[in-house]
Amino acid sequence: MRGKWGAEAARRLARLAEVSEPGPGVTRLPFKPEHRAALDLLSGWIAEAGLSVTLDDAGTLVGRHEGPPGARTFYLGSHQDSVREGGAYDGIMGVVLPLLALEKLRRDGVSLPCAVEVLAFADEEGVRFPTALIGSRALAGSYDSAVLETADGDGVTLRAAMEDFGLDPDRIPELKRPRETALGFLETHIEQGPVLEAAGEALGVVTAICGIERHRITVTGKTGHAGTLPMAGRRDALVGAAALVEEVRRLALATPGLRGTVGSLSIRPNVVNAVPREALMTAEFRAADDADRAAAGRALHRFAAELAAREGLQIDIARSYVQPVQLCDPDLSRRLRASVMDSGGRGMDVPSGATHDASAMADLCPMAMLFVRCRGGVSHSPDEYAAPDDLDMAIRAIAHFLASL
Amino acid sequence: MRGKWGAEAARRLARLAEVSEPGPGVTRLPFKPEHRAALDLLSGWIAEAGLSVTLDDAGTLVGRHEGPPGARTFYLGSHQDSVREGGAYDGIMGVVLPLLALEKLRRDGVSLPCAVEVLAFADEEGVRFPTALIGSRALAGSYDSAVLETADGDGVTLRAAMEDFGLDPDRIPELKRPRETALGFLETHIEQGPVLEAAGEALGVVTAICGIERHRITVTGKTGHAGTLPMAGRRDALVGAAALVEEVRRLALATPGLRGTVGSLSIRPNVVNAVPREALMTAEFRAADDADRAAAGRALHRFAAELAAREGLQIDIARSYVQPVQLCDPDLSRRLRASVMDSGGRGMDVPSGATHDASAMADLCPMAMLFVRCRGGVSHSPDEYAAPDDLDMAIRAIAHFLASL
Repeated sequence: MRGKWGAEAARRLARLAEVSEPGPGVTRLPFKPEHRAALDLLSGWIAEAGLSVTLDDAGTLVGRHEGPPGARTFYLGSHQDSVREGGAYDGIMGVVLPLLALEKLRRDGVSLPCAVEVLAFADEEGVRFPTALIGSRALAGSYDSAVLETADGDGVTLRAAMEDFGLDPDRIPELKRPRETALGFLETHIEQGPVLEAAGEALGVVTAICGIERHRITVTGKTGHAGTLPMAGRRDALVGAAALVEEVRRLALATPGLRGTVGSLSIRPNVVNAVPREALMTAEFRAADDADRAAAGRALHRFAAELAAREGLQIDIARSYVQPVQLCDPDLSRRLRASVMDSGGRGMDVPSGATHDASAMADLCPMAMLFVRCRGGVSHSPDEYAAPDDLDMAIRAIAHFLASL
Repeated sequence: MRGKWGAEAARRLARLAEVSEPGPGVTRLPFKPEHRAALDLLSGWIAEAGLSVTLDDAGTLVGRHEGPPGARTFYLGSHQDSVREGGAYDGIMGVVLPLLALEKLRRDGVSLPCAVEVLAFADEEGVRFPTALIGSRALAGSYDSAVLETADGDGVTLRAAMEDFGLDPDRIPELKRPRETALGFLETHIEQGPVLEAAGEALGVVTAICGIERHRITVTGKTGHAGTLPMAGRRDALVGAAALVEEVRRLALATPGLRGTVGSLSIRPNVVNAVPREALMTAEFRAADDADRAAAGRALHRFAAELAAREGLQIDIARSYVQPVQLCDPDLSRRLRASVMDSGGRGMDVPSGATHDASAMADLCPMAMLFVRCRGGVSHSPDEYAAPDDLDMAIRAIAHFLASL
């Protein structure tokens, strides 16, 4: 019966969505009571799928299906946490669907040639603590213990939160997996964008996780009384900031696949009758092509220098963060594309504009990502939604993919 | 000896600048201990000038020189209060210089044909309470007692602050002066702009106090992940806000004498990797011509409607405040121009971009304003400065003006 697995996935996701702090949508932060309650639900379903359950010291719930002696391990999974007032699909869907795919394979009597682990990472969103990807970095060996001393908004350190959760964070380094035993990683995630919906496709095969660069910009002008300072002599920091906002957009529109965003902007003194003295802002570029992205960054720096000279402003612009493109593994992606097509899709290629646990897992082993269409491209919102039929198709594609390994 | 009066004015202003809350520059708020200390100093100098001293129930210190029986009263003055971390000249200079002008006239043996009152208003800046111009509005009869129930940042109501200061705010309505006895008002103030400095003139004769209109603007778009939302589908509230910032500037540059400022802007959610959903901003236009100003406001509304349609944004824009131009009295201004020329100036005409006590006094009687050059056009800053030679010239011009009445 077509749709049975999708309906069950939707039921489980609705059940998990109830495990939330009060308020609209889903708020489930790492190492909080809601995290524990979600792990309890997941543990039950892991057992139903016939897997063993453990919680590692990074807070990652691991459901393991043993393979033939000496076989390597294929990893699937995503994160259990949400943003504040987020949705029911981002992250957690990537744990629920593989478990159902494994259950389907078991019911279908398919035996796998490898061990399989389904992983529910504690923290990918980085909402509670100023760090993220603890669980996936622990497995890949890129975890840095310095983050344990960072604190949440209530002053609770990550170390204390993990210890209260029953974990021993000093043992996280022991979680690192040997590369030679890791066969690959598949992350299933909602697209968080409107491309699949616009194309009429339920599923997409991710080609790469976009590279990111961020710039921190301070525009310094001169304040003055809005009534007494003539226009000609002004050095208005907000006028400079506005030109930068438009240039970031112009650069992004001029290069296919490039995304450019000024997400944060604050001005001082920020009163109705004073010319703004200072604007603090960020600019971010993302692209599936590092050269395109870097060229946009350099162009923005040149534009800022010209603008500063023209407007009599001081503009300090510094690249504060760079993350290169991470290509999905061509072989795994080819298999995944075939599995999507077997499930009735076209096997459409899409880039991922967002970072995922797969970004960290790429340091351990080849990785691939399966995107599921989400309504209106909406994520990080109570309105986040993926249709049960699309979930069903994803489960069948994952099952086909695992059987093909 | 040229410069003697200016040196004395500088000495008195330096003495008054010491009467400040701790911190950089001058912070002297109404009905605070610093206000009392300033009144004590002023009272002494009022007596030295041979005037009687009273404090009215609006907190205005009044130094009165009696005129011939039945003669009308000419008013001079400005405000004693400063902004937080303001300068030593804004406001208070307009009290100090007329007192010295009267002292000079007395020494010179000049007798005046009218009564004269020098006024030190309690509050023009509106920094402590969300109201201003209490003293000048009381005299003009435009005072509204509802403001008594507004409170400062510590929860102290204006009523309580005035009562603690020894005033009876319920008697403020009695302060209204009969129009038939009011001959005129002259306010002397630093320019708070760079026009006189650029022209090499110490003094300017104000033609009008600019009209003001303010607009409150909310730009609503749609947030989304900066990495996953393609450029084409974006409805970025900050991109809309940036276009409005540039249009306000363009309109102001296109019309001589028009000033346009976006002084405040806040965006949500204001994070590096999210497309801004909402921008809250203000736009302000000022001009010495009401028609020019209103045309700019209408043009901004039209631009906002076109922008909203083009960018798929919702833009709510409402004119939240209007204050028409107040023309300085032509006859008083002509006499003032002659007095400036007698003191060695060109008698240059300048508009006032800022509001002053003279705006409220205009409801009572003809008014004129004398602007004094300030270094770099700087005001509302500890760096505010006017040269003793310029103060000297202003004192001589005021004395000449009074003698010419």
